[in-house]
Amino acid sequence: MSLLLKNALILQGNDFSPLHGFLGIRGTLIDYIGETRPSFTYDDEKDMENAILIPGLVNAHGHAAMTLLRGIGSGLPLDRWLNDAVFPVEDRLTADIVRAGNALALLEMIACGTTSFTDMYNDPDVLIGQCMGCGIKLNIGRPFLCFDPEEKLEDSFRAREAFALYDRFHMAADGRIRIEFPIHAEYTNQSEPVRLFSQEVKKRGGRIHLHLSETKAEVDACLAKYGQTPPEFFASRGTFDNPVYAAHCVHLTEGDLAILKDHGVTPVHCPSSNMKLASGAAPVRKWMQEGLAPALGTDGCASNNNLNMFEEMHLAALLAKIQSADATALNAREVLAMATRNGAAAQGRSDTGVLSPGKKADIAAVSVKAPHMYPDFDPAELLIYSAQGSDVVLTVADGKVLYENGKYLTLDREEILKEAKKAVRQLYGESNGF
Amino acid sequence: MSLLLKNALILQGNDFSPLHGFLGIRGTLIDYIGETRPSFTYDDEKDMENAILIPGLVNAHGHAAMTLLRGIGSGLPLDRWLNDAVFPVEDRLTADIVRAGNALALLEMIACGTTSFTDMYNDPDVLIGQCMGCGIKLNIGRPFLCFDPEEKLEDSFRAREAFALYDRFHMAADGRIRIEFPIHAEYTNQSEPVRLFSQEVKKRGGRIHLHLSETKAEVDACLAKYGQTPPEFFASRGTFDNPVYAAHCVHLTEGDLAILKDHGVTPVHCPSSNMKLASGAAPVRKWMQEGLAPALGTDGCASNNNLNMFEEMHLAALLAKIQSADATALNAREVLAMATRNGAAAQGRSDTGVLSPGKKADIAAVSVKAPHMYPDFDPAELLIYSAQGSDVVLTVADGKVLYENGKYLTLDREEILKEAKKAVRQLYGESNGF
Repeated sequence: MSLLLKNALILQGNDFSPLHGFLGIRGTLIDYIGETRPSFTYDDEKDMENAILIPGLVNAHGHAAMTLLRGIGSGLPLDRWLNDAVFPVEDRLTADIVRAGNALALLEMIACGTTSFTDMYNDPDVLIGQCMGCGIKLNIGRPFLCFDPEEKLEDSFRAREAFALYDRFHMAADGRIRIEFPIHAEYTNQSEPVRLFSQEVKKRGGRIHLHLSETKAEVDACLAKYGQTPPEFFASRGTFDNPVYAAHCVHLTEGDLAILKDHGVTPVHCPSSNMKLASGAAPVRKWMQEGLAPALGTDGCASNNNLNMFEEMHLAALLAKIQSADATALNAREVLAMATRNGAAAQGRSDTGVLSPGKKADIAAVSVKAPHMYPDFDPAELLIYSAQGSDVVLTVADGKVLYENGKYLTLDREEILKEAKKAVRQLYGESNGF
Repeated sequence: MSLLLKNALILQGNDFSPLHGFLGIRGTLIDYIGETRPSFTYDDEKDMENAILIPGLVNAHGHAAMTLLRGIGSGLPLDRWLNDAVFPVEDRLTADIVRAGNALALLEMIACGTTSFTDMYNDPDVLIGQCMGCGIKLNIGRPFLCFDPEEKLEDSFRAREAFALYDRFHMAADGRIRIEFPIHAEYTNQSEPVRLFSQEVKKRGGRIHLHLSETKAEVDACLAKYGQTPPEFFASRGTFDNPVYAAHCVHLTEGDLAILKDHGVTPVHCPSSNMKLASGAAPVRKWMQEGLAPALGTDGCASNNNLNMFEEMHLAALLAKIQSADATALNAREVLAMATRNGAAAQGRSDTGVLSPGKKADIAAVSVKAPHMYPDFDPAELLIYSAQGSDVVLTVADGKVLYENGKYLTLDREEILKEAKKAVRQLYGESNGF
């Protein structure tokens, strides 16, 4: 299959340089970008009516199934939110409920231009199957947690499942599915098992995703237990000898920053979640001054409460400015890079994240027809400060159209909403008029 | 005319208490709210399909014509943004260009559920005419500025125009148009003229809107000039002996807070603009601890860069939490109150801002059909953290439908977009592909 997108404003290359014209897709790849119509033919063409084309958004940290916990315990302080609201519900999750929550998340993400995401949750095989079917890209694994400091790796069912999942699904669906090795967090793990697990990952050339230094309480507890910050803990256990991307990284010492830099760890900024849970403002500018290339994520729906990367981009830009008392902090192109090629790089996807010929055709098209999208002084600024997720009119992953003008091409919206309602009734009962 | 909205989730009364059922509109008023169908008949009825009904949003601080400056000079520091980007363009504005910018703003505000707004800009009579036509509510006046400390009020064309505008239009269009007496700011005024102007306003029982303590530089300059903070400056010149609502109020001393409290000044929070220009985080929690009832505004499009009150509500909630390191700060109902009845009260509109029988039928309906609006644990939370401006499906002011499912009933969208393009060409030339 081949498809020509015409009459589009293409933010191409690493600097999102705007070009008005044509973008050609052949198979899974972008095969042409230019101001003039290419000489070769395409099976189909679409008039984009001046829509802005950007690389498909990469949501580099989330928990898809938690859409069914959207807004749960909202307004509670973090410890009560987790213990009184989130955990008791998670305790009742079944694979069917997880499937229903995942599907709802897929609807939301695809409609807002997300073409690839990283997930960390139980029952990863359920989500893998769903993503193979619907065409979106997924980085996932069986999260490693360990509560027994003496546990041998061969006795850990989580470790066994993590490696089995890798053997079974890594690079499935033409590489759209990537299996990685999430380590949930320091505070849900033990010293020696983390060392052994990290070693095993290294043997396989694997990639690690984890939660890191999200709250001050987490850092304080780690210091009390090990005399180390969470980055020191992971660095000294060999975890960071693997490619790592770490969600949050809010509370970092200068030493922590140096560790992240030395090991090339990618921080994943989750501004909505950090603000809503009052965890703190991640030092994004400092990360970048250290030469790190941060990615961006929504985190789970329970602490966001949505999966809209346009909101994350907007918040990232605004939060950096007020945090540093500098209106020039984190410009629009830097934010776009976080949400696209930095996320792709964190996921180990060097074949995407940029609109250039030869790259995978992972694309979001943003309409400029709404009154709030005019005038356009700079399309990157317009995307970060004025656009809404609802302005997305086309989502393409690996050259396949997943979403167009409100219609899902690979998902059954009505069926998914029906299943979500069923799952919510199972999870919470008939109360509250759900 | 009468209209019955059925099958709606109505957030009624001062506590936004949810009631599923019927809301009746007769003439300009809400005449019924109840779970059961009212016994009297209506000319028309609409099935709201479970949409959430809230009081129409009140945007309590903005500069509508500046939509044509959307995103201008973005990323520049405040002084260069104003001097190099904004002022040279404003210098070229004509009444026709202002009209085109206003109309674009009206499209955007009405589509996002705003039913009343406060504006401060030149050529107020242009906007008054437009708002009389399209049915939205407007508080506006001729802004008072003064650069000659010796100027007599009778020699000030601005003062003369301010009072003439009041005499001509105050309470026009059945009270939808309210003329007030904006004093632009301390830094664009002089001591004695402000005193005299404030005195004249008091004689008329007028209302004052102003910019107050937006940046630290403004406060420092005021201290250097008068040995007073901006609130001290205005209080000691009698300005606060009038009903006043003041945009920003970011940099306040404890003494300033006491002044605002003693005089019942309403602060108008503008989180997007304060974040984008790196002005600082307004002490919203402190305002509320003093018993103030803050309103909410978008500010102008040039520093936002949109007029979407759903974004302001979301940002207000998130910013308060990270600012106070407390996830319980500024709950969803408090934010909704800021955006509705507090704004209405600031505008002097005691007849609206709440969904109750006998109040004006100023209503926004928010669809819950999109995947990101499910599940619903608490409709107020859902509106603040999950909803998008694009979820608004119905906007009603004084009982008149202004917008429904993407269609404008009192504005010609295509004509306005055409005029906006013409105005942008006039303002900026043919450059940049506008």
